[in-house]
Amino acid sequence: MPGEFEVIRRFFDRGPARDARLGVGDDCALLAPLDPHAVFAISTDLLLEGRHFFAGADPASLGHKSLAVNLSDLAAMGARPRAFTLAIGLPEIDERWLAAFCEGLFALADRHGCELVGGDTTRGPRTICITVFGEVPESAALRRDGAQPDDDLWVSGVLGAAAFAVRERNAGRALAPDDEASVRLDRPQPRVELGLALRHLARSAIDLSDGLLGDLGHIVERSRVGAEIDWPAVPVDARLQSLGDEERLRLALSGGDDYELLFSAAPENRTAIAAVGARLGLPLARVGRVVCGSAIRVRDARGRALPVEARGFDHFA
Amino acid sequence: MPGEFEVIRRFFDRGPARDARLGVGDDCALLAPLDPHAVFAISTDLLLEGRHFFAGADPASLGHKSLAVNLSDLAAMGARPRAFTLAIGLPEIDERWLAAFCEGLFALADRHGCELVGGDTTRGPRTICITVFGEVPESAALRRDGAQPDDDLWVSGVLGAAAFAVRERNAGRALAPDDEASVRLDRPQPRVELGLALRHLARSAIDLSDGLLGDLGHIVERSRVGAEIDWPAVPVDARLQSLGDEERLRLALSGGDDYELLFSAAPENRTAIAAVGARLGLPLARVGRVVCGSAIRVRDARGRALPVEARGFDHFA
Repeated sequence: MPGEFEVIRRFFDRGPARDARLGVGDDCALLAPLDPHAVFAISTDLLLEGRHFFAGADPASLGHKSLAVNLSDLAAMGARPRAFTLAIGLPEIDERWLAAFCEGLFALADRHGCELVGGDTTRGPRTICITVFGEVPESAALRRDGAQPDDDLWVSGVLGAAAFAVRERNAGRALAPDDEASVRLDRPQPRVELGLALRHLARSAIDLSDGLLGDLGHIVERSRVGAEIDWPAVPVDARLQSLGDEERLRLALSGGDDYELLFSAAPENRTAIAAVGARLGLPLARVGRVVCGSAIRVRDARGRALPVEARGFDHFA
Repeated sequence: MPGEFEVIRRFFDRGPARDARLGVGDDCALLAPLDPHAVFAISTDLLLEGRHFFAGADPASLGHKSLAVNLSDLAAMGARPRAFTLAIGLPEIDERWLAAFCEGLFALADRHGCELVGGDTTRGPRTICITVFGEVPESAALRRDGAQPDDDLWVSGVLGAAAFAVRERNAGRALAPDDEASVRLDRPQPRVELGLALRHLARSAIDLSDGLLGDLGHIVERSRVGAEIDWPAVPVDARLQSLGDEERLRLALSGGDDYELLFSAAPENRTAIAAVGARLGLPLARVGRVVCGSAIRVRDARGRALPVEARGFDHFA
């Protein structure tokens, strides 16, 4: 059975650093911004077996998703991915598992030019902690605290498919791995290109990991504003049409795991933003507006407030 | 019981970023080098309950050690600490535990000007993943691959106390928490100032986490050299004098958890290095030399090779 250093050499050390100044194999990695005027954007996520993924989860999808959720944070900041570290706990050295995990991980990493520069490998419960580094000119960073009253609120893609897949799995009706809803849940595509295109167009942004209302709550809180969502304008996955109104609303607005971007922008940028969506082949929907105050309201087609609870996923609730 | 966001607010969000451009509370933290010619040094460590620390481990010591092992990696690179992220899994919200953990963590962080800029908090087995960021001018970075034949080999401090404490604990003879060996094990002092002082003096460096021989093995491998250690010159903790020769050798050279620095330097820098030790009040011992070849030999007072196995701690062995 290969040991720790052998695992690092065989699976995680992909040769000399390409873009970083120093990669895997020293006390630290060394990394410098490519653009001397940029700052580093940093995010970290911890994934635990039994909590964030099942014991038998497909390792290739897990490798993909572990990095995808972090790249999604960079996207929400308008940052260009550069590098990541991987700290991993493994119950044993399962070479097939590791090969598949690395396949999913590095396929996504390579697609976004994001290089593994260091990590830590240890025996223990299956645990994945990725920390990702991107770069962005400070003035272009898409923060949560920049929303202003009268900004439009936009979301990318369609919402609810991942939550639908979770609902089916929880009900013992697991979808096929290649079902589109499964793919949305297991292999989310971080909206990195969109984040880059929104620099200087959006005033605030966040990625949708905990559900639109919960994540909008963070923008509202940080920007000290309120928000109104036009429910009919929200792009809802077609599968949710078969559900009851309440369940559809819940999955689309509070379901989580969408990894789309929610952002606010001045109304004068509508045309430019629509052009970005067309260029990227990614639907961008104007779903509401920023208002004064501190409340989030969801309105139906006739302008009536719908009863929803604007609350993000709380890992300890 | 407070939820996830409340935990972050109460324990981990210490107000606006001091030194970073953006801290806790957005999708990413933003960080720029203070010195525009510096690069970022990055390291990550994963600590799992039952593997790296006991279930009942003192939380303040755990907070300290979790960051200390990462700062030690920065020290070994000659990097100045800037910031860190903390991803933490907790089985429940235990406010006393969290307060003590944060006390140990932030006392050390503040001492080294290292700011918490982001993280992730989730329910699960107690898990701590810290990623740390320092900065260093690229030409001054102390890498593992810079050792050259005829370099002196140096170590800071004295070795073996932490390994002695582990040995006593494993034998059911736990030392008092304020026993010096316990303190060395539970609250190691990362040699950050030494690392900074060794810029341009040392040619290679590594921190001693896995034992002198194992960590020297990394320098030897990366630098494509061999090494000779003069056993009588190795600074060994006084407690180890009561042990048999073989056990003393084992704890001092392969014991691990010392978190001292091992470095190589040209002989012409001896006086300057001694002056650094005197200034910092930290013993620096010349314990051997770099040689051609690829082997590591340990010699006794009469120059005879001692039978030792030059092997680092392998988490999967």
